[in-house]
Amino acid sequence: MAPIRNSQVIFNEIPKGLPEPGKTTIFNDKNTIDPETVPLDGSFLVKVLVLSADPYMRGKMRPVEVPSYTPAYLPGKAIYGYGVGKVVKSDHSGFSKGDYVTSVMMDHAEYWVPSKDDFSTIKKFTPEPGLPLSVYLGAAGMPGRTAYIAWSMYAHAKKGQVCFVSAGAGPVGAFVIQLAKRDGMKVIASAGSDEKLRQCKEFGADVVFNYKTQSTEEVLAKEGPIDVYWDNVGGATLDAAFGNAALHARFIICGFITQYNSQEATPYKNIAHILFKRIIVSGFLVFDHEAEWEDKFYAEIPKLLASGQLKYSEDRSKGLEKSGEALLEVQVGKNVGKKIIVVADDD
Amino acid sequence: MAPIRNSQVIFNEIPKGLPEPGKTTIFNDKNTIDPETVPLDGSFLVKVLVLSADPYMRGKMRPVEVPSYTPAYLPGKAIYGYGVGKVVKSDHSGFSKGDYVTSVMMDHAEYWVPSKDDFSTIKKFTPEPGLPLSVYLGAAGMPGRTAYIAWSMYAHAKKGQVCFVSAGAGPVGAFVIQLAKRDGMKVIASAGSDEKLRQCKEFGADVVFNYKTQSTEEVLAKEGPIDVYWDNVGGATLDAAFGNAALHARFIICGFITQYNSQEATPYKNIAHILFKRIIVSGFLVFDHEAEWEDKFYAEIPKLLASGQLKYSEDRSKGLEKSGEALLEVQVGKNVGKKIIVVADDD
Repeated sequence: MAPIRNSQVIFNEIPKGLPEPGKTTIFNDKNTIDPETVPLDGSFLVKVLVLSADPYMRGKMRPVEVPSYTPAYLPGKAIYGYGVGKVVKSDHSGFSKGDYVTSVMMDHAEYWVPSKDDFSTIKKFTPEPGLPLSVYLGAAGMPGRTAYIAWSMYAHAKKGQVCFVSAGAGPVGAFVIQLAKRDGMKVIASAGSDEKLRQCKEFGADVVFNYKTQSTEEVLAKEGPIDVYWDNVGGATLDAAFGNAALHARFIICGFITQYNSQEATPYKNIAHILFKRIIVSGFLVFDHEAEWEDKFYAEIPKLLASGQLKYSEDRSKGLEKSGEALLEVQVGKNVGKKIIVVADDD
Repeated sequence: MAPIRNSQVIFNEIPKGLPEPGKTTIFNDKNTIDPETVPLDGSFLVKVLVLSADPYMRGKMRPVEVPSYTPAYLPGKAIYGYGVGKVVKSDHSGFSKGDYVTSVMMDHAEYWVPSKDDFSTIKKFTPEPGLPLSVYLGAAGMPGRTAYIAWSMYAHAKKGQVCFVSAGAGPVGAFVIQLAKRDGMKVIASAGSDEKLRQCKEFGADVVFNYKTQSTEEVLAKEGPIDVYWDNVGGATLDAAFGNAALHARFIICGFITQYNSQEATPYKNIAHILFKRIIVSGFLVFDHEAEWEDKFYAEIPKLLASGQLKYSEDRSKGLEKSGEALLEVQVGKNVGKKIIVVADDD
């Protein structure tokens, strides 16, 4: 069998602010792989089907010497992130041809051979009938686990209390809105476009507003005070939430997109309310807690998503060459719903 | 018996920034009381012995219509706060002549007749032999309970980890340094004068620095990262702590003196580390938890203080007329140790 195309998305340059498709990352369709002869050495060959574009990936586009919670991308190498693929050839006793796998280390490429270091990140799964594979990158994947685990650990939801969710149309926010409603809370959700607000409503939010055209302070003053704030953004929105927190409010800090592309200091005028209102603010990254919660999550959530009891929305780009653009979209909030890059059909 | 002098400290004017003795508060020594004829109506007459000047009292010097966690002082009325006194006459079955009492509602006056609303705040106690009454306003009082309870609830201290305490020479900070050392931690303490740094050392701090002449960022970068930050100040110190936090750090926000006298927004450049380091930030005010912890505290702490196993320091002003000045001192950090106003001897 002759070598076949194995296009890749290469990390080329550290962005100054926002990532720039074609400069920060370069799409290379000249690369090839020979499935017959590729050395596996105890690993296996995965055909990449769907990839995820997530805000955290901006944090990996930095000098390798700068420490952070997630390793930096290596210049000249393929970028990687959450993906779903199918094993096409295996030299590993735990994985067989036809297995579906998901991992946070999947190359933005058409084919992937995991290294031994990647093995612990790879989960083999049986797709829930009726649920698209891409959902395992969203509501049934990392964003869903983020919402589900942090909500379970830190929200201490009480019926009749008020929850505010920023980025409510994103994959985490959408899930949180539904969890808060299931717990009997009043939900305020913010987003940046009419289409996103419509989606927040569909997910069940009671009050929605566009943070670009309405004052977050004013909305929260009118509809709050807020008992739970689910923060995906930080900055002025977080400051407004501090100012409108209820006594003993719980803040879950789960994203901070206002600072991913900036080193500027942000003015906070209400942060002392952490004291005055005795707020508990909890920073959360899902990988700290996945081992403990994963089984419960997979037993419960994919079924609810397949049956429609939990809703999700997706924003798909077709073709690996759209990866760079997708990464930019999730930084500026252009996507509506979970951003997915469809690399290949599952045939 | 003829009426006797009952000097009072009257709340006269809302300060713009710092309180101004003689303007914000006025000392009135023309007031009298007749212990024979004063109407008690089920209450009792207390001779005020020692009073406390605490930073939170600035927050009560505000317009009555502005809500906060503690009621505003009423213009033209005596200010009040933590104090220790002795019952001289009683029309209340629970209190007898000679009883020692402490309360957060004690007038800054020579005599005090508590209202029925005050009763629930009054604690009768038997002074530990060898322990000055004033210590029941410091290490054996509200600041001590603050340190003891919040440390017990939120520090999750681990031997060998690093604790940073701001305002380390204050009554709360001094207590926290000793709790952290008892738990086997390395302790970094900051304060604003050589004398305060010397005290921090005496309380057991391993590393001390003057935040006015040394960079908090640099000290924490060298001596950290910090696992527990005990915050009494907020502002730039808190921002430096965010920037130098260890993974899964615990921040206890127990004071925010940088904002008590200012409405300005403060720039934070490191607040996103709440996410990156998965920090848990807990706002704490002692009165939320006193009922639950009080018995344990009084059974354990006064003995340790009397025996010298726990240390404390005091900064005493003699005479009720010093009240206004004392309130200013605790705002600008002029006091070294717990600020006490000695109103009368216990004779």
